[in-house]
Amino acid sequence: MASSLLSTPSQTLAPAPAAARLRAARPAQVLFPRRSRALRVRASVAIEKETPESEPPPTFLREDGQGAGSGSVRERFESMIRRVQGEVCAALEEADGSGARFVEDVWSRPGGGGGISRVLQDGRVFEKAGVNVSVVYGVMPPDAYRAAKGEAGKNGAAEKPGPVPFFAAGISSVLHPKNPFAPTLHFNYRYFETDAPKDAPGAPRSWWFGGGTDLTPSYVIEEDVKHFHSVQKQACDKFDPSFYPKFKKWCDDYFYIKHRNERRGLGGIFFDDLNNYDQEMLLGFATACADSVLPAYLPIIERRKDTPFNEDHKAWQQLRRGRYVEFNLVYDRGTTFGLKTGGRIESILVSLPLTARWEYDHKPEEGTEEWKLLDACMNPKEWL
Amino acid sequence: MASSLLSTPSQTLAPAPAAARLRAARPAQVLFPRRSRALRVRASVAIEKETPESEPPPTFLREDGQGAGSGSVRERFESMIRRVQGEVCAALEEADGSGARFVEDVWSRPGGGGGISRVLQDGRVFEKAGVNVSVVYGVMPPDAYRAAKGEAGKNGAAEKPGPVPFFAAGISSVLHPKNPFAPTLHFNYRYFETDAPKDAPGAPRSWWFGGGTDLTPSYVIEEDVKHFHSVQKQACDKFDPSFYPKFKKWCDDYFYIKHRNERRGLGGIFFDDLNNYDQEMLLGFATACADSVLPAYLPIIERRKDTPFNEDHKAWQQLRRGRYVEFNLVYDRGTTFGLKTGGRIESILVSLPLTARWEYDHKPEEGTEEWKLLDACMNPKEWL
Repeated sequence: MASSLLSTPSQTLAPAPAAARLRAARPAQVLFPRRSRALRVRASVAIEKETPESEPPPTFLREDGQGAGSGSVRERFESMIRRVQGEVCAALEEADGSGARFVEDVWSRPGGGGGISRVLQDGRVFEKAGVNVSVVYGVMPPDAYRAAKGEAGKNGAAEKPGPVPFFAAGISSVLHPKNPFAPTLHFNYRYFETDAPKDAPGAPRSWWFGGGTDLTPSYVIEEDVKHFHSVQKQACDKFDPSFYPKFKKWCDDYFYIKHRNERRGLGGIFFDDLNNYDQEMLLGFATACADSVLPAYLPIIERRKDTPFNEDHKAWQQLRRGRYVEFNLVYDRGTTFGLKTGGRIESILVSLPLTARWEYDHKPEEGTEEWKLLDACMNPKEWL
Repeated sequence: MASSLLSTPSQTLAPAPAAARLRAARPAQVLFPRRSRALRVRASVAIEKETPESEPPPTFLREDGQGAGSGSVRERFESMIRRVQGEVCAALEEADGSGARFVEDVWSRPGGGGGISRVLQDGRVFEKAGVNVSVVYGVMPPDAYRAAKGEAGKNGAAEKPGPVPFFAAGISSVLHPKNPFAPTLHFNYRYFETDAPKDAPGAPRSWWFGGGTDLTPSYVIEEDVKHFHSVQKQACDKFDPSFYPKFKKWCDDYFYIKHRNERRGLGGIFFDDLNNYDQEMLLGFATACADSVLPAYLPIIERRKDTPFNEDHKAWQQLRRGRYVEFNLVYDRGTTFGLKTGGRIESILVSLPLTARWEYDHKPEEGTEEWKLLDACMNPKEWL
C-alpha cells in the first residue's frame, strides 16, 4: 500500500510479503498462495473506468442488502474514513497557512463505489499532499475463490461456485513538505470483505483490516521520531500490548528497498489481513490509528516547517525523495498492482513527490547527518 | 533493457514482452515460457557481488576455451562495445565543452567477467550521461535449461543435464541533456551465448543479439526526429530492408507505459533474441547500429544545446523525466530484473535522470507544443 491510495481493489487484493505475515493460514493468504495465482486474479480484476462526478454523494455504498445497512461495519468504516479525510485536510490547510486549498476530484464506477481524491500542491509548507478515500466493489474469479475456500469445501459448498463479490474501502495519504527537516508522512487504513457466492450459501464470508502510518524524514531528529512512534504506540496499546512491537517490525519489514538494503524511512506501524480479533475491536483500532495521524504528525510539522536550510539539505531531501519513488514504483503492492489493473492513475501516483533526484553513486560521508539517516534506514532502531 | 545497463546477466535473461516477439520458438523464448519459470530462474541467477578494480583489464573474457579465442564472436563483440564506449564518451565530453569528464568505475566478479561504468554528471550540456559496458558469466539452473532444451531432447541428450553456463556482453547508455529542447537518448546492444552442459554433449548451444537506440524528446522537433530515424533506417537497410519497419514497431511496442497509454518517447529501433540470420551478419548489424549512435544524436545536440528556454519548458521536461522514471522502474525488463537479482545498482540506476517531477493530474492544453509531444507518444507516427 504505501503510496497506495486505495483507488482500486488492487491495493487490498495484492498479497502481503511472506516475511511480513503473522499467521499461517488466513483467508487473504489462502487466496494468493503463489504469485501465479495472484497474476491470474490480477488479470481478472482489471476494473471499469471511473466517471468524474461533480459532488461527493452521501455514501458510496450500494443498497444491495449485503451488509450495507445502517450500523454495518462497511457503513461505519466509510463514515470514519470520510470524517478523517475532512479533518486531516482541514488541519493541513491550516498548517500550510498560505490560503492554498485541497482540490477535490470525485469519481464513481458504473457498478457502484467511487472515491474522493483531495490534493494540495505547491503550498507554503507542503510541496504535495494527497488524501484520498475510496469504496470499491469488485468480483473475484471462481478459481481464486476455490483456492481460498479450502476448509469451506468441507461445509458442503457447491463444487464450482460463481464469482465472489468483494468490497474494499480505504483512506490513503502521502504528505510531502517542502522543508528538508519536515518529514514525509504516509498513512493508509482499509477494510475488506468478501461475500459468499450466491450459488454456494454454505461458503464462508470473510473480512479483514489493513493499514499503517509511517514517517520518512531526510534527517533524524530524535525528538520528532520518538514523538511519532510514541503516538503510534499509545494508539496500539489501548487495544493490545502486542500490537506496537509486532506492527512496528512489520512496518520495518514492509517498507524495505531491497536493492538498496535500506528502509524507505524510519517506520511506524503496518498491519495487513487482520481478522483474528473481534471485528468491532478492530474497527475501533483502525479508527484510533487514523485518529492518531494528526497528533502524531502536526506537532512535528509545526516545529520544522520554518527551520532554516541550505541547498545541500534540499539536495539530500531530493535524493531521499528519489528513494521514495523507487520504493513506491518497484515494491509497493498497492501501487504496482494498481498500475497494472487500471486503477485511477492520478490517485495512485499522487503519492510521488513533486520533485526527486538521482545522483550516481552518492555516498554520504560517515558521521554526517545524512549518513546518520542512511544508517537508521539500514539498521532499524527501537525508538521508544 | 531501456535503462538497462547490462551490468548483470539479468538484462539478457529477462523474457521479452510477448507482443514484441518476432518468432514462435527460439531458445530465449522457450527458456521462459511462463512467468513462474522466469521467477525460478531469477532466484537462481542472483549473482556474486562485484569487486571494484583500479584499472580496466585488456579483456573481461575468461581463457576457458569456450569460444573466447582470438577472432571469436565473444571477443569481437567485447572489442566493439569497448571501442564504442570510448568513442561515445570522447564525443560527449567534446560536445559538453565544459571540461567535465566521465568518471570511470571498473568492477569484476570473482567467477569472471566485469564491467566499466562511465558517468558524466552535471556538465554544461549534459545533466547526466552514463555509458556502461559489461561482460558477464553465469549459470542457468537445470530446470530452466530442460524447458529450453525442447527439441534437443531428440538429439539424445542426457535426461538431467547439469547447470548451463551462459555468457552475456553489452553496452548500455542513457544520456540526459539539460536543455528541454535537446532530447534524451538511450542505446543498448548485447550479445548472449549459452553453452552445452558438460554432461550433455548433444544438447544445443545457442546465441542471440539484442538492442536498440531510441530518442525521448520533451518537444517534437520534426527535423530532429526525422534525422534520428533516418540514420537508424540507413543502418538497418544495409542489412535487410525488413529490419527498420520491424524494429521501429518493436521499439514503439516495447517502450510503452501501459498505465499512461503513452510511449516513453518517439522511438527508434529495438530488437531482441535475434539469431535467425547469419551470426557474422548480425555481429555486423549490431556494430553498425552502435556506430550509428553518434551520427544520429550529435547533430541534434549541437543544434539544441543552446536553444533559449523558460521555466515552463523546464517544468515540462521534468514531467517527461518523471515518465522516464516510471517506465524504467515499472516496465523495463533489464532494470526491474537487475534490481531483483542484485546487479550493480549504481550502474543499473544511472539511467534515471538527475531530476524529475510529478504534478497531480497535469494535462497540457490541446494544440500546445506539450500536447503535440504527448499526442506523438500516444499515437506513434511514421517519421520517414
